[in-house]
Amino acid sequence: MKKQKRILIVGGVAGGASCAARLRRLDEQAEIVIFERGPYVSFANCGLPYYIGEIIQHEDKLLVATPELFRERFHIEVRTRNEVTLIDRAASEVEDRNLETGSVYRERYDALVLSPGASPIRPDLPGVDLPGIFTLRTIPDSREIRDWLKTHNAQRAVVAGGGFIGLEMAENLDVWGLEVTIVEMADQLMPPLDPEMAEFVRRRLVAHTAQVRLGDGVAGFEQAGNGGLVVRTQAGARIPADIVILSLGVRPEVGLARQAGLEIGSRGGIRVDDSMRTGDPRIWAVGDAVEVRNSVTGAWDLVPLAGPANRQGRIAADAICGRASRFRGVQATAVCGFFGLTAALTGATEKSLRRAGASDYEAVYLHPGHHAGYYPGASPIHLKLLFRKSDGRILGAQAVGEEGVERRIDVIAMAIQKGGTVFDLEEAELCYAPQYGSAKDAVNLAGMLAANVVRGDVALAPWSGLTDTSAFVLDVRDASEVAGHGIDGAVNIPLDQLRDRLAELPRDREIWVACRTGHRSYYACRLLSQNGFRVRNLAGGHESYKAWFPEGHRQLAGIKT
Amino acid sequence: MKKQKRILIVGGVAGGASCAARLRRLDEQAEIVIFERGPYVSFANCGLPYYIGEIIQHEDKLLVATPELFRERFHIEVRTRNEVTLIDRAASEVEDRNLETGSVYRERYDALVLSPGASPIRPDLPGVDLPGIFTLRTIPDSREIRDWLKTHNAQRAVVAGGGFIGLEMAENLDVWGLEVTIVEMADQLMPPLDPEMAEFVRRRLVAHTAQVRLGDGVAGFEQAGNGGLVVRTQAGARIPADIVILSLGVRPEVGLARQAGLEIGSRGGIRVDDSMRTGDPRIWAVGDAVEVRNSVTGAWDLVPLAGPANRQGRIAADAICGRASRFRGVQATAVCGFFGLTAALTGATEKSLRRAGASDYEAVYLHPGHHAGYYPGASPIHLKLLFRKSDGRILGAQAVGEEGVERRIDVIAMAIQKGGTVFDLEEAELCYAPQYGSAKDAVNLAGMLAANVVRGDVALAPWSGLTDTSAFVLDVRDASEVAGHGIDGAVNIPLDQLRDRLAELPRDREIWVACRTGHRSYYACRLLSQNGFRVRNLAGGHESYKAWFPEGHRQLAGIKT
Repeated sequence: MKKQKRILIVGGVAGGASCAARLRRLDEQAEIVIFERGPYVSFANCGLPYYIGEIIQHEDKLLVATPELFRERFHIEVRTRNEVTLIDRAASEVEDRNLETGSVYRERYDALVLSPGASPIRPDLPGVDLPGIFTLRTIPDSREIRDWLKTHNAQRAVVAGGGFIGLEMAENLDVWGLEVTIVEMADQLMPPLDPEMAEFVRRRLVAHTAQVRLGDGVAGFEQAGNGGLVVRTQAGARIPADIVILSLGVRPEVGLARQAGLEIGSRGGIRVDDSMRTGDPRIWAVGDAVEVRNSVTGAWDLVPLAGPANRQGRIAADAICGRASRFRGVQATAVCGFFGLTAALTGATEKSLRRAGASDYEAVYLHPGHHAGYYPGASPIHLKLLFRKSDGRILGAQAVGEEGVERRIDVIAMAIQKGGTVFDLEEAELCYAPQYGSAKDAVNLAGMLAANVVRGDVALAPWSGLTDTSAFVLDVRDASEVAGHGIDGAVNIPLDQLRDRLAELPRDREIWVACRTGHRSYYACRLLSQNGFRVRNLAGGHESYKAWFPEGHRQLAGIKT
Repeated sequence: MKKQKRILIVGGVAGGASCAARLRRLDEQAEIVIFERGPYVSFANCGLPYYIGEIIQHEDKLLVATPELFRERFHIEVRTRNEVTLIDRAASEVEDRNLETGSVYRERYDALVLSPGASPIRPDLPGVDLPGIFTLRTIPDSREIRDWLKTHNAQRAVVAGGGFIGLEMAENLDVWGLEVTIVEMADQLMPPLDPEMAEFVRRRLVAHTAQVRLGDGVAGFEQAGNGGLVVRTQAGARIPADIVILSLGVRPEVGLARQAGLEIGSRGGIRVDDSMRTGDPRIWAVGDAVEVRNSVTGAWDLVPLAGPANRQGRIAADAICGRASRFRGVQATAVCGFFGLTAALTGATEKSLRRAGASDYEAVYLHPGHHAGYYPGASPIHLKLLFRKSDGRILGAQAVGEEGVERRIDVIAMAIQKGGTVFDLEEAELCYAPQYGSAKDAVNLAGMLAANVVRGDVALAPWSGLTDTSAFVLDVRDASEVAGHGIDGAVNIPLDQLRDRLAELPRDREIWVACRTGHRSYYACRLLSQNGFRVRNLAGGHESYKAWFPEGHRQLAGIKT
């Protein structure tokens, strides 16, 4: 009879729970024990904001699996409210404290899996421990927030941090009728996005009467006379609030790993190999606490997402059972919804490419409808596609819109996973019926625009260069479209008149061409370049111009119009 | 100066129009003329059913581009109501008839592009030309149908043919309040789907009070006394109808090509190479009239879809301009929506694999929610994934459901395009937030199920074998789930009791295991196989059982329960 393996798992959410279930499927004999500091295992932490907003009404909905289920279905022992406090690698033992009884005991392991997760950042600011200031990680956290909202007649909320959780919380506090102010230290919301794409997010929040303070962080908290709070910002603002949510990001929980002498990487997470193994051949680590390789940029990264955590859990289980599974890294595919808008991304952003020192890349922008324009109800998808200029390899995509956003990002995510190029997107064969898409889907169009660049059929003008260029800026929209929606300093010649008005264009300067979305300007570029002009397309047209320069670029650049 | 090329295009919808526009972008000097027999070019024929249902209210919405736009924007001449009647290949000329004036004239070409499309099949049945019997291909067709509905107080419709157009017409006639009967000669609706997947479609139609007659074709039409019609079927039924829509498929228009001696393939379409060129080096053909290679099965096929037609048009334009574009074949990705349901597919079906003589394949079924179950409103996606058993290569997918269907099919379409495997689906990194998906998305789950098969972790039992097997059929659902929803002859042992009741299972026979969706039965298979039992999973569980055997399999097999 095969020796019974003893596997201990620290942390019973996402990665840890997945690992445990997979272990049982692979090894019916193994002894498997999960230690979980909190009162629950395998709960849906991505659902917590919606539990607060009472969209998810009952707490038990959040419990994906219970200790009873683990026991009955998988013969896995779950010890909740038990904290592993120490790893004794020499003895292959952990020390555990029962948080109910205070008793401390040791358990031997053949394999140990660390899945401690990440904890919300709670900065050491004056007043940060005042009542009414919350972070959100666990079911008890969300219960406290919900109770506070019920018992304190809260009218105004400050959300510190405009990332995914912050935006989801803004929406769910809005459900309660609260006035919400988001305070974000960065110059943009949703820091994973490039700033011009985050502008579409800001616009939607403001349209829903949320206050958005960018480039300003929280500096401290005071008790107000009326029992409420005052949030002080770095810029000196004082914002009254009846509740404050700190959504300033998370930090991997690496205390146990560090104490055990396991390697901690440059980003502050546990370092593992591609089978999720730490430097100790008996210890694996998975989930939000580990550093992962970004599969596009190759950089080490912290990506606290449920999908990769589950995948890692299964891979660790495979490895423990002697199977040769490999974690392929993360693309950081993510999605966030709020106020009827969806923002999603996959792969590299321009920011992350620049950070990684890349220069062989280009970006196209487009704003196609989510389905055929001739079928009523099409709404625009604002899409940015990043690709290698030398060979067309897809590097990343970001999209914002009301409908069909996650679908396009998912398709591009798969293309990136398979090493696809913009030519693959161009000739992708996707679902088309008028209520679902277009014969040339948004994904196809993105591929075509990018392929035009890679093939050299059109050159792109950089939006960032607009403030400081000697180029002739040509706007080929119809005059009626330009009225009140111009591009500072641009000359308007409608596309359909262009062939007859070539004499009005300079031959000694570059011509940068724009329209509403970049489609007609591309036609114009082809027409002009074949007539000997030096042209570049302003990708995404006026729709992208507004995202880059909400107030116009001359004002930004301090140029007198 | 470069010689001005003269390019003539026969047919100005989809492929022809795309080709023309692309030609202009590549060659500003070329002379380009489109001949279109009908009154319109570049109209949205996929929108016609919705124009009839008045979801698309105005006819001009259907006009994607007008002759004026072609002239002004692209300097392309469009001759509507002009029919090309003959190709004189020796002289490089076409003969054209102006349908308004009747005059006949000739035009010389350097390159000729055929984009004649396909025409609806109108079988030579008794009474088929009676008033009130329509096919649907053009704007005038749909206008006539709409007028008929408006002026004839129609109450009952017969739709002959239960394919995509038939189902879309059923929905749009329902908008008018008509009672709809669909008569379909095959044993299933939506013939491109496998029959058990089409069962979900039938169920929805019937739930929406449409009558569905399968395995029965229309045989003839009679004028009824009340001014209406009577539709006779092959089985002898007589169905009263105030309007009849013939949606029996389309036939490629190859008359012109055949007359010119161009090769017609075995499926009845124009044969072209992968640059869309016919055997004549000056003649290209694109769109519904050409045969294409199925990129999965390698078989020649007719795939009358707008997306591939547009792609082909651009490729022909590239080829004419000396560029080395290649058509990669079709995956036959398609989607259809009706009565709140979406059915979509990509790649090969089990039917098409069998037709192509393939045997190295397997299918998994699953029925996951379109987003996380803990977030309210998740609705099931019924998904079938086909893959090569030897190496996991993805061959095709079909899905039916209310939400998120087209998204999953699109992701799998991209995976197929890139030669992906079920392992790629397993580790795909897709958008997850609770209202958008699950940490293990439907696509991931499909990949996992299939990967389990390819890796040998579980064997599948064939549903089709259920009527004729000596296997022990084990149902691991809870007793409360089984009540009234059993699988004929199955023994029920709930999963959570299985370890304690192994003695009740036979060791001398195969055990086929089912549950509701195939998830718990997979756990059971792992448990049992590790305990030495010979087991197979009934993929998709009771949900798939109902699709395979709506009335139970014993009744079907004539077995006494």
